[in-house]
Amino acid sequence: MEAPSTQQNSLYAIIIYMDAIITLDIGGTNTRCAVFHTEQDDPVLIDRTATTTENEIAIERIAQIIEKNWPKDRQVLGIAAAAPGSVDVVQNKIILAPNVPGWKDYPLGDLLAQRFGVKVLVNNDARMAAVGEWKRGAGRGHNDIVYFTVSTGLGGGVITGGQILHGALGIATELGHIVLQDDGPACGCGKFGHFEAFSSGTGIHNYVSQKIKEGSPTALKSPSPNTKEIAEAAMVGDALALEAFNRAGYYLGIGVANYLHIFNPSCVIFGGGVSQSGDLIFKPFRESLEKHVLSPTYLANLKIALAELGDNAGLIGTYEYIKQNL
Amino acid sequence: MEAPSTQQNSLYAIIIYMDAIITLDIGGTNTRCAVFHTEQDDPVLIDRTATTTENEIAIERIAQIIEKNWPKDRQVLGIAAAAPGSVDVVQNKIILAPNVPGWKDYPLGDLLAQRFGVKVLVNNDARMAAVGEWKRGAGRGHNDIVYFTVSTGLGGGVITGGQILHGALGIATELGHIVLQDDGPACGCGKFGHFEAFSSGTGIHNYVSQKIKEGSPTALKSPSPNTKEIAEAAMVGDALALEAFNRAGYYLGIGVANYLHIFNPSCVIFGGGVSQSGDLIFKPFRESLEKHVLSPTYLANLKIALAELGDNAGLIGTYEYIKQNL
Repeated sequence: MEAPSTQQNSLYAIIIYMDAIITLDIGGTNTRCAVFHTEQDDPVLIDRTATTTENEIAIERIAQIIEKNWPKDRQVLGIAAAAPGSVDVVQNKIILAPNVPGWKDYPLGDLLAQRFGVKVLVNNDARMAAVGEWKRGAGRGHNDIVYFTVSTGLGGGVITGGQILHGALGIATELGHIVLQDDGPACGCGKFGHFEAFSSGTGIHNYVSQKIKEGSPTALKSPSPNTKEIAEAAMVGDALALEAFNRAGYYLGIGVANYLHIFNPSCVIFGGGVSQSGDLIFKPFRESLEKHVLSPTYLANLKIALAELGDNAGLIGTYEYIKQNL
Repeated sequence: MEAPSTQQNSLYAIIIYMDAIITLDIGGTNTRCAVFHTEQDDPVLIDRTATTTENEIAIERIAQIIEKNWPKDRQVLGIAAAAPGSVDVVQNKIILAPNVPGWKDYPLGDLLAQRFGVKVLVNNDARMAAVGEWKRGAGRGHNDIVYFTVSTGLGGGVITGGQILHGALGIATELGHIVLQDDGPACGCGKFGHFEAFSSGTGIHNYVSQKIKEGSPTALKSPSPNTKEIAEAAMVGDALALEAFNRAGYYLGIGVANYLHIFNPSCVIFGGGVSQSGDLIFKPFRESLEKHVLSPTYLANLKIALAELGDNAGLIGTYEYIKQNL
């Protein structure tokens, strides 16, 4: 950038440098809030508050954290929120958020816009994390990306031809909710045999709990161990725990092969807690992927990477998203 | 359009009206060739020649039908070909065409461009049919379309956010090749339990043939009846034939539900011979779709329609595709 050469240019620079954007990442446990100065890529502050499942209080909490962090010396151009569940991105309305029971057809965008008098956009949290990784993380420079977040559930987002995949209403890329096995285990959504029911943390947990109930030998003490406990047991060679990760990785390979055939991405990214399990899940995943892919061409120039932005992917992705749509 | 007001404008009008585009639809049995005048939507002629599976002869046959129909009084702006199998749309090269054994990494685009000295584009036939239906058929006015061709195989194409889904190389939207049931029947591609192995004509045929071999009672005379014979038997109440269509429709519902969750389209279109079977396949399909869809929101404003352009979808789609890319 050239140095300002006249007083007028300096003044102009000061004016454009006074904008800010506020982004939110509403999670099951915490709601995080970031303030960005539009001349910078990284947030100037990140704050958090507890998410509550009570409808009225939830919106008050969100409004409070925005008010608390509202920049005094800058013009706020807009607020963008990443929310869990199905989001109607045309109306900026939460259709259904499994972790916030009161939020059914909930007009979060309109409520915040009325309160703060600025443009508000609401989008799905996994999709916003995908945008973050695309613009600033492991997907930089790629136009065709499939991003998976493998944690309690299994969600994701897709960039295709340099464009964010939304679908007609914004409820596309429910990547965890495709049937891989019709007579498979129950999914959190109430259906059966979904990708999420096999390869998410909940899928691993449910499988181990069921096997313990059936009397499978294991060093695990709890009758209902969490994913972290199962990973630790697998690390020291517990057969049941290893079997659970092998199974999750095997289905992860099937699911990802499906998505290579559907999207032919040049980059696949894994975020979320379960994807921190290393070879435990990625060794069986790679074997299964190679077995299930239609042709080696899909793998030839494919980057497979872990997410780089960690917890901030959603806050950063939401910032990049609203910048594109102001 | 305003009437030309000066001689110069008239001359300009004459020049732009002298362009033509040639499109090809290369099928397993026939290669069809259409000539379009760029001021019109419909082709001025359609010709055909037999496709041969011999590599050298195949390209000669294609060149001959182009030469035969090359317009004498117009400038040809380009040639666009719809080809079966995997097509690298960046290099206009056929990666693999199951019905033309010699065509492996076959530079069809370069060969035709060298021969005719014009721009040549090559793309997948099902994708081009999808483009045809989007621009001129059942998908007019929609920005988010999933198109399925259900015939011998099961292929398709996707329009998302008003953009044709190609993927990094152009080998995306292999919609028939996703695993629905890991331990399911063999697919034509060599893998198991694919959508195509359940719901295509070949899937129906294989299921019935296997059941006859196992001794299932049926009025069907042939030990290996084709889809048309099975449909006729189902129409007069043959239990095995009905079971075969119910099964194909059931898995069609699972597959389409998967794609609603992935793409959230506003329009789903069915082309291909099997989709002419009416309620035989679409009644079990609808029941299964309603059972497997994550939320009624996916169906609320969804148009589900049969393809409108018939055999010409590929020729017309390819014309619309090259017009966008000249």
